[in-house]
Amino acid sequence: MKTYNIALLPGDGIGREVTEAAWTVLEKTAGSSGFSLEATRLPWSCDYYLENGSMMPADGIETLRSFDAILLGAVGWPQKVPDSVSLHGLLLPIRKAFVQYANIRPHRLLPGVQGPLRSDGFDILCIRENTEGEYSGAGGRVHQGTGNEVAIETAIFTRTGVERILRFAFEQARRRRGKLASVTKSNAQKYSMVFWDEITHGLAADYPDVEVTSYHIDAMAARMVMAPESLDVVVASNLFGDILTDLGAAIQGGLGFAASANINPDRSAPSMFEPVHGSAPDIAHLGIANPIAAVWSGAMMLEHLGETAAAEKVMAAIEATTARGIGAIPGKDKTDAITASVLSALG
Amino acid sequence: MKTYNIALLPGDGIGREVTEAAWTVLEKTAGSSGFSLEATRLPWSCDYYLENGSMMPADGIETLRSFDAILLGAVGWPQKVPDSVSLHGLLLPIRKAFVQYANIRPHRLLPGVQGPLRSDGFDILCIRENTEGEYSGAGGRVHQGTGNEVAIETAIFTRTGVERILRFAFEQARRRRGKLASVTKSNAQKYSMVFWDEITHGLAADYPDVEVTSYHIDAMAARMVMAPESLDVVVASNLFGDILTDLGAAIQGGLGFAASANINPDRSAPSMFEPVHGSAPDIAHLGIANPIAAVWSGAMMLEHLGETAAAEKVMAAIEATTARGIGAIPGKDKTDAITASVLSALG
Ligand SMILES: CC(C)[C@H](C(=O)O)[C@@H](O)C(=O)O
Ligand SMILES: CC(C)[C@H](C(=O)O)[C@@H](O)C(=O)O
Repeated sequence: MKTYNIALLPGDGIGREVTEAAWTVLEKTAGSSGFSLEATRLPWSCDYYLENGSMMPADGIETLRSFDAILLGAVGWPQKVPDSVSLHGLLLPIRKAFVQYANIRPHRLLPGVQGPLRSDGFDILCIRENTEGEYSGAGGRVHQGTGNEVAIETAIFTRTGVERILRFAFEQARRRRGKLASVTKSNAQKYSMVFWDEITHGLAADYPDVEVTSYHIDAMAARMVMAPESLDVVVASNLFGDILTDLGAAIQGGLGFAASANINPDRSAPSMFEPVHGSAPDIAHLGIANPIAAVWSGAMMLEHLGETAAAEKVMAAIEATTARGIGAIPGKDKTDAITASVLSALG
Repeated sequence: MKTYNIALLPGDGIGREVTEAAWTVLEKTAGSSGFSLEATRLPWSCDYYLENGSMMPADGIETLRSFDAILLGAVGWPQKVPDSVSLHGLLLPIRKAFVQYANIRPHRLLPGVQGPLRSDGFDILCIRENTEGEYSGAGGRVHQGTGNEVAIETAIFTRTGVERILRFAFEQARRRRGKLASVTKSNAQKYSMVFWDEITHGLAADYPDVEVTSYHIDAMAARMVMAPESLDVVVASNLFGDILTDLGAAIQGGLGFAASANINPDRSAPSMFEPVHGSAPDIAHLGIANPIAAVWSGAMMLEHLGETAAAEKVMAAIEATTARGIGAIPGKDKTDAITASVLSALG
């Protein structure tokens, strides 16, 4: 029987609760699908930092490299460790070291979920560049603490980085409804964003079956609210994708429903699957976190591993659950009750 | 009788139609309010560029400096002149030269307008930093055209620039409901955004009557859709403010309703008032542009000039118009009909 070795990184806060919930669902699905899943739990987190002085061991990346995939809960607990330390010590290094350059986030309403928009007929796939751009970490401060202080933050875009994410997005669009929206701000950022637009237009010739349109980030944010049904695949830089996918989570009813995959498309290193929500320290350990986003992320992991039928089973079980109103209303049901319902829908 | 000298910059596309509509309303209001308005129309635009090779004359900024205020329509017509030329040749230099560092944009539903959200009880004032940050224009490209190409775009924040916009925002919050949301992304941009957060927390002591909260831009985008009624004053950098105010325009029913003021709070140079919408070349000259955003921007101009009662008259006339369903549904009424209705509501 085929066995997949999965690194489980529950991380902080509700990350632990939702990861265990997702794992239960994934294990049961594997059992009825002819493969097995083996978990190795790694306790890397803010608590780990407080004990060990780092978010993960020095050989953490090497340890992770041998797994077939990584399932992550959430990282960060600002009251214990500043986000600028915890995220740069665990989440972001993994995305970068494993060249998980495509961050994929689906936005659609699950049955039974009422979103904040009057409109409900949308099905958007956001593809966020995940390794460079505005989150390159380059910058500095001079004259610190004086009235004359200046801080700079430099966005760095490479042709390789932009081209690969755009190709990935064109290919996703080809597999869906053939429409790609590329998001920039080239009227105000004339180096980085004009560069991105040029590459987009250059690649378009290779994908004549895909209709590609460029939008400014401000116009796209408005469009996701005013006319989300007009969108199919949306591709954007690290920062713009970050913003648009939280907006996507909002229109799909909240972060409790927003799943994501950090993909290394070349499969030269493991990919990582995580709900979009954070660690939510205020509700940690209360057993009230919605595990749907984590379970959905788990389905994306099965899909990536090639277990398409199993991934579909998980999605069907999620949909059967929310259609019955369970887990569909933020704050209403307990983590365990939602998980039990998904498990029972699995049959 | 007090006379205000106003530079009218209709600009491109529907900018011309909506500026004339706004002007008619403002003139009539002045007539019944005991002051007079004198317009000087300046034809600076993409057409001007095609004839003269620049978006405005070399002494354009000096010409504008002598006015009491500037009323602008919209700049840009990409089929004639690239946005990166037109905007950097007219709109952006004015904002910067006249230190219009506070871009103010109110977001609330006018009576009779149905927005895209189920929720309608919000009243947000967005304050966008308007002179530096991510739109500083600093950057470059190396190895152009090769596979090895790199583009960089540097966001530049000065203590003076950040402090003055935050103080302005704290003061606006003090005059409203006493709540300020400061928007950054300090978990991923550790130079610029951590700097902004530090200054925010440092200033908070000077405004004990204002409750200030820091949000990440992604969380704020989601909040504007999920819980807009929880917000009062929102302050953000140039880019983040740009995105949030288009989102604000979306939730208030569309760009046809979104007004803005580019304010020089020290009054050392004229301020500029403009609708948030662009020039919309596709509907230019058709007489179907909604002038409400431009008229509202005109009301903000009267307010800035100290003519508060007149500004209130204009707002009341706008509200009476949309309450009657006129101008309330995007695309339904002609520019002239909406303007006529506002004029008649002025009495
Ligand atoms: C926590 C933060 C660094 C992260 C990001 O911005 O990448 C998160 O917002 C996300 O969207 O995955
Ligand atoms: C046209 C563009 C440069 C401008 C900006 O980003 O400032 C516009 O989007 C706005 O919001 O006023």
